[in-house]
Amino acid sequence: MNAEIIAIGSELLTPFRQDTNSLFLTKRLNELGVEVIFKTIVGDRLEHLLQASRIALTRAQIVIFSGGLGPTEDDLTRECVAQALGRELRRDHEMVTALYTSAAAMRMRVSENHVKQADYIEGAEILKNSRGSAPGQWIDTVYEGQRRIVILLPGPPIEIEGMFNDHCFDRLKQVLPEEHIATCELKLAMVSEPAADQRAAKIYKQFSDIETTVLASPGEVQFHLKTRGATQEEAETRVDELASLLEDEFTEEIFSCTGESLEQIVAYFLQMRGATLSVAESCTGGLLAERITRISGSSRYFMGGALVYSDQLKQDFCGVPPQLLKSDGAVSHSVAAALAEGIRQRCKTTFGIGITGVAGPSGGTSERPVGLVYVALADGKHTEVVDRIFPGGRERIRWFATQLALDLLRRKLR
Amino acid sequence: MNAEIIAIGSELLTPFRQDTNSLFLTKRLNELGVEVIFKTIVGDRLEHLLQASRIALTRAQIVIFSGGLGPTEDDLTRECVAQALGRELRRDHEMVTALYTSAAAMRMRVSENHVKQADYIEGAEILKNSRGSAPGQWIDTVYEGQRRIVILLPGPPIEIEGMFNDHCFDRLKQVLPEEHIATCELKLAMVSEPAADQRAAKIYKQFSDIETTVLASPGEVQFHLKTRGATQEEAETRVDELASLLEDEFTEEIFSCTGESLEQIVAYFLQMRGATLSVAESCTGGLLAERITRISGSSRYFMGGALVYSDQLKQDFCGVPPQLLKSDGAVSHSVAAALAEGIRQRCKTTFGIGITGVAGPSGGTSERPVGLVYVALADGKHTEVVDRIFPGGRERIRWFATQLALDLLRRKLR
Repeated sequence: MNAEIIAIGSELLTPFRQDTNSLFLTKRLNELGVEVIFKTIVGDRLEHLLQASRIALTRAQIVIFSGGLGPTEDDLTRECVAQALGRELRRDHEMVTALYTSAAAMRMRVSENHVKQADYIEGAEILKNSRGSAPGQWIDTVYEGQRRIVILLPGPPIEIEGMFNDHCFDRLKQVLPEEHIATCELKLAMVSEPAADQRAAKIYKQFSDIETTVLASPGEVQFHLKTRGATQEEAETRVDELASLLEDEFTEEIFSCTGESLEQIVAYFLQMRGATLSVAESCTGGLLAERITRISGSSRYFMGGALVYSDQLKQDFCGVPPQLLKSDGAVSHSVAAALAEGIRQRCKTTFGIGITGVAGPSGGTSERPVGLVYVALADGKHTEVVDRIFPGGRERIRWFATQLALDLLRRKLR
Repeated sequence: MNAEIIAIGSELLTPFRQDTNSLFLTKRLNELGVEVIFKTIVGDRLEHLLQASRIALTRAQIVIFSGGLGPTEDDLTRECVAQALGRELRRDHEMVTALYTSAAAMRMRVSENHVKQADYIEGAEILKNSRGSAPGQWIDTVYEGQRRIVILLPGPPIEIEGMFNDHCFDRLKQVLPEEHIATCELKLAMVSEPAADQRAAKIYKQFSDIETTVLASPGEVQFHLKTRGATQEEAETRVDELASLLEDEFTEEIFSCTGESLEQIVAYFLQMRGATLSVAESCTGGLLAERITRISGSSRYFMGGALVYSDQLKQDFCGVPPQLLKSDGAVSHSVAAALAEGIRQRCKTTFGIGITGVAGPSGGTSERPVGLVYVALADGKHTEVVDRIFPGGRERIRWFATQLALDLLRRKLR
């Protein structure tokens, strides 16, 4: 089965806003074995929306509309889809009463536009909206001789996600041919995409029945595996088979098989070990700590640390000897090591991480180019220091540096 | 004039990837007075792409294709657009030679697929790609009796942006009717969207010739103004008129009229004053410092600070008296103040900022609910403390807290 998603709203045709609902919808549709073949974005104009509706009904088996169900004059989805299907709009009197009751409670007047939200397309099932006022609609119909499932959903992400999960997913499952789909997501740290893909391709190419998607972001590569089977067990066994082979190939690099972020994996290992962590950040300016503390409950293993942008603070907070800063420079192997061990001692933690580097775009020299980063990990007995020259702009270099730091700690804790 | 943007690539129909090129293209097209009326996302399938091309050529005056110009079998844009226009593909022999020459230099073999990149649609102008291998194409034609501008551009953002800026913007300007468009972007801090819009609407509604778009993100509201005029001067005068009235209404809240971020404005004020800054962050965990150090050159005014997740470090790094932590609790007015003044003294800076709060989702109590944040700003003579209860999840609350901190400092420096 295939689907088209139509996102409605003139703001989605400006440089400032983007349709993101389709990512959520695609994920859930894929779980049901439905492929999205077109996405259309259209403004709040009757003739454009009507045209987009007709085209979608011709070419896709499931057509999902998001947005344009609110109470303003710009909200035209109900009218347009009714017209495209050649059906009348009816008014749901129960809902009209509900609209008046809730408005009275808030001492608001009900306008004719507001009452539009009680309109439904003849033959549609109404989908309750427990997170907003505009209900959705579900229409199982025939269009030009073809069966079509037409779904109208509200635009706000919290409303559309809730409504799809509550009222559409199971309904679609019942309507669709039974499918058994298994998926798996492997995440790898600090390996380049071409290198990872070269090593992985010779394995996954033997599994032509499994769809393998390789995605990359700075310091991270993901393998998304997906297959169908005659039974759920068969599909899962098959995906597990490929996943195991990839895990064998990338024993060092794979940090998660179940979707966790690198921060979450480090959190898990630290807690399992009853270990604590502190950081001293120079060029990353707080990004490492910010990533670590994204996890709720991180205060159990993360004590804090120091932001040592200036040389003076490298001395004051981490006890880096001034002569070291003078002889080796702030961006050096020895200063990174001193930051890591210094902050570990000051904060009395199991581990200490020190980062120093040149995030750019200015400040680079031939000896210390933009992108050069030293990351040190100290545990009291030993301090490990890694240096790398990362490509890209300031933001990318800083992200890479924190990814390297988290991965160093992960490998240590494994 | 109006345009449709067609983004091509099966990966853009997965839950993992999204077309973002259209945001850039829309921005530049809007500058030329061109409105984007449809966006279509289509996979690498001949019949789908052909259909999408024909529909777009029927309904839009400018049709821009992004992606599908590379050397793989999946790259079908050239073939499909040629077929939709009823034209032949020709091979550019100069480009074939260039492909062989560059491949020879890299000791690579040239495949038939590779040579496809030298194919152009009969009558097209070839657009050089200085950032990649696939050239673009420009076709000024008539389709079903209507003049159409058809542009084929590569998918990678760096290539499409370069090619559009270098080869399409001026070409379009010459082709399009002369337009005089003026825009202005006003940014406001720490005001809610409904409140800002209520106050602004009574002003901007008097300017029906100016299109005003209100956008909001946590702790920030933006007014985007746009108008057309008979001359450039007329358009700009008109936009300036509305901008001035809005600036009068929001003297306190507006921090930028020319696109700068709040971090940039704070950076500007600190440098102008020759002042320095340090921070002590508890619940924001490094996010404030991370935002401040996004600016290249921030080491001129930002010295660093402390990440004081644990109570012990609040004492050790900022000298917060243990009895204060005991009597008032770590999330309190007095501890925020002690953090700000403590870090200011330790780091010997002009200003110190202290943040403490409950970012959630766990850790809230009836006295100190999730979202409660204290932000303090110390200058040695006086310490100002503001408390707020922010809505939303952990990420949103932390962002709000840093926005409040930066805005406090901005108001102080103004």
